[in-house]
Amino acid sequence: MNKVEHIGIAVNSVKQAGEIYSKLLNTPVYKTETVESEHVLTAFLQSGPNKIELLEALNDDSAIAKFITKKGEGIHHIAFDVDDIEAEMKRLKAEGFVLLNDEPKRGADNKLVCFVHPKSANGILIELCQEIV
Amino acid sequence: MNKVEHIGIAVNSVKQAGEIYSKLLNTPVYKTETVESEHVLTAFLQSGPNKIELLEALNDDSAIAKFITKKGEGIHHIAFDVDDIEAEMKRLKAEGFVLLNDEPKRGADNKLVCFVHPKSANGILIELCQEIV
Repeated sequence: MNKVEHIGIAVNSVKQAGEIYSKLLNTPVYKTETVESEHVLTAFLQSGPNKIELLEALNDDSAIAKFITKKGEGIHHIAFDVDDIEAEMKRLKAEGFVLLNDEPKRGADNKLVCFVHPKSANGILIELCQEIV
Repeated sequence: MNKVEHIGIAVNSVKQAGEIYSKLLNTPVYKTETVESEHVLTAFLQSGPNKIELLEALNDDSAIAKFITKKGEGIHHIAFDVDDIEAEMKRLKAEGFVLLNDEPKRGADNKLVCFVHPKSANGILIELCQEIV
């Protein structure tokens, strides 16, 4: 795992949270993107080699809507950058981690992604992501 | 803010979580440190330019004990690396953020730290940290 690629934060409004995090990090939202398959609107801010991904539910089917209903706004996942997602998935399965998808799937920001079940990682949803080149 | 310096994770046992995160990140815990003032035992793992800080409460006075009682294990804070913590504190105050300490205080890992109130940042506890040189 090369670095924390991004930290995903579940928010009620990407617009409102974007304004707050722009001030906090002293940098603008540089991209917004809708991920229809996940029913989310995302916004990205850069902090050096890392990103903050703000996530707003587009409808009640979104995992983000369910997360906010249960826990309120907060950190939804940590994503680690990997060079070879299939190799990492194989390694983690062999180590006993439970993966939420058997094959890498297309995520936001031009990435192949896979999630590790929070019960495998002290309650934290972990994402692996590999840049699509 | 230069980068995500570390992500702080509240855990029941640094030993148990250290084993899990060593496997997850494929890298060993490289340091453990007790921070008496915060009543915590910490353990650090590296992921490229970023760190994961595991935090275990040493007693019930610890903010980590209260966090776990309320929410269970999970992400406790995000820390951003800054060059000049006093300048950043002044900038954030002027932007309307509520800071939890008026002066930088000594944290783990040879850092001066300051926390931003979660109500200022969509429910997330933000730490600023500056390396002591």
